[in-house]
Amino acid sequence: MKTFDEQYGVYREAVEASFDVFLPQDPSSVLTESMRYSLLAGGKRIRPVLALAWCALCGGDTRAALPAAAAVEMIHTYSLIHDDLPCMDNDTLRRGRPTNHVIYGEAVALLAGSGLYDKAMETVLDFGAEYGLSDSQRLDSLKVLCSASGLEGILTGQVLDIKNSDVAVDRAYLERVNDLKTAAMLSASCVLGAVAAGADAETQARADAYGRAVGQAFQIRDDILDVISTPETLGKTPGKDSVENKTTFVDLLGMEGAQKEVLRLTEKALSLLDGFEKPSFLKELTERMCGREA
Amino acid sequence: MKTFDEQYGVYREAVEASFDVFLPQDPSSVLTESMRYSLLAGGKRIRPVLALAWCALCGGDTRAALPAAAAVEMIHTYSLIHDDLPCMDNDTLRRGRPTNHVIYGEAVALLAGSGLYDKAMETVLDFGAEYGLSDSQRLDSLKVLCSASGLEGILTGQVLDIKNSDVAVDRAYLERVNDLKTAAMLSASCVLGAVAAGADAETQARADAYGRAVGQAFQIRDDILDVISTPETLGKTPGKDSVENKTTFVDLLGMEGAQKEVLRLTEKALSLLDGFEKPSFLKELTERMCGREA
Repeated sequence: MKTFDEQYGVYREAVEASFDVFLPQDPSSVLTESMRYSLLAGGKRIRPVLALAWCALCGGDTRAALPAAAAVEMIHTYSLIHDDLPCMDNDTLRRGRPTNHVIYGEAVALLAGSGLYDKAMETVLDFGAEYGLSDSQRLDSLKVLCSASGLEGILTGQVLDIKNSDVAVDRAYLERVNDLKTAAMLSASCVLGAVAAGADAETQARADAYGRAVGQAFQIRDDILDVISTPETLGKTPGKDSVENKTTFVDLLGMEGAQKEVLRLTEKALSLLDGFEKPSFLKELTERMCGREA
Repeated sequence: MKTFDEQYGVYREAVEASFDVFLPQDPSSVLTESMRYSLLAGGKRIRPVLALAWCALCGGDTRAALPAAAAVEMIHTYSLIHDDLPCMDNDTLRRGRPTNHVIYGEAVALLAGSGLYDKAMETVLDFGAEYGLSDSQRLDSLKVLCSASGLEGILTGQVLDIKNSDVAVDRAYLERVNDLKTAAMLSASCVLGAVAAGADAETQARADAYGRAVGQAFQIRDDILDVISTPETLGKTPGKDSVENKTTFVDLLGMEGAQKEVLRLTEKALSLLDGFEKPSFLKELTERMCGREA
């Protein structure tokens, strides 16, 4: 029986090893180099780990979830590269390293982001069958990926987030932004794991609800960390929300209220894991995600 | 029996009408508005027309090619929006209108471009079955779209194009840039039509070869037009290549040599249409594409 940390390490290493298969370095391509620079920059790999863990939770072989798990990390990385561009958040530090455009220039960074999105789709298309997914599982997986990254997910979330400093922001608005910008991709990760395990629609819906709750908690936690962190503990520039005059959950509910809301959402997520045979890894993961070191 | 212009109009109108189905306006979404601003900006719709015409050439029902045809136009538009951004070509005029970022700002233009790529995939995923595509046809179509828009297509073409002014450019380099940047998506359009018609692999390969030849001819023609046009006839800023110190086919072969090369490629493309039952529309289209008004 592996400890939580050991199991997390197994999942994380499987995902990181898969990047050399799904996106190998082409020595003649600065584009591939730039894509890999950001994709291999570390990070907790929470989204792909969620995909593998949900696949296991639903009784599947985690190998079948590997292409989609890698794909969600590619899409997450693409959104970070574009988010960091000067015309967006204009960030120069990410995961403790210079952001993509600082190293490769804005034009290549723009193309590298798009390339990672493209490669995410191609990974499911090119490797899905080899890793054990049926045609309909591949189509379902692509649909989940597209929904979470498109108009019903990240992109609309980012537009609303840009407007955050211009409009009167209430709780419903912030919840919608967090759902689109963060929770959609976390829940997609869980659903992709369930799809790879061949889980039924009801179980997929439960994976979705779990991911939405964790995603909201995760984002509120992010708002809290933005207030109380240093660049060293956060790995990126803190205090941005305040500088950009963005309303956060901490503004709306106060620090204590925000922390209570994180707890409420954590309990909700945990309850959605009840009834599965082996929920312990995901229960521990839920608690750690929602109470990240501060 | 329709004339060429009548048939072109039928295809073009079918594609343009489909945009209201595949990407309807959401009154509350500036992102959708911005995506539709560029998608509905007109243009010749050559890529989707090629998809529908190749579907018909292979004996298919053109309705089955409509989602993929719309998808190639969305991807083409996405690449134009990103190409026009200040960090890329910094163009302010496209199809006679202000470019996307001039109207909506860089951040929304960036997201709108990504949104169109996402929506292209979703169109095949969401509407493919309804329009008569099997699961394997949908997967094949997505693979063709991803290849042409990713590392084996537009994105690498754009990186090489950016470097054009920094390196010693010879004919092989330019042919590679043109193949990746332009011909890949034109040939994808033809292959998608063949796939929608249920054509065999040999016919798909012929569609690909046809599209590659037309694409090379089309791009050399573009280089020629860049030298000899006015903003009014071209609908965008001419003379950019010279200002940006980019080597073109006109530089390498001279004006006459470039025109001869267009003719050679046109003949090659036409010969690939021999043996089909009703090639007349595509033969006429080939000649018009490669000899656009100048």
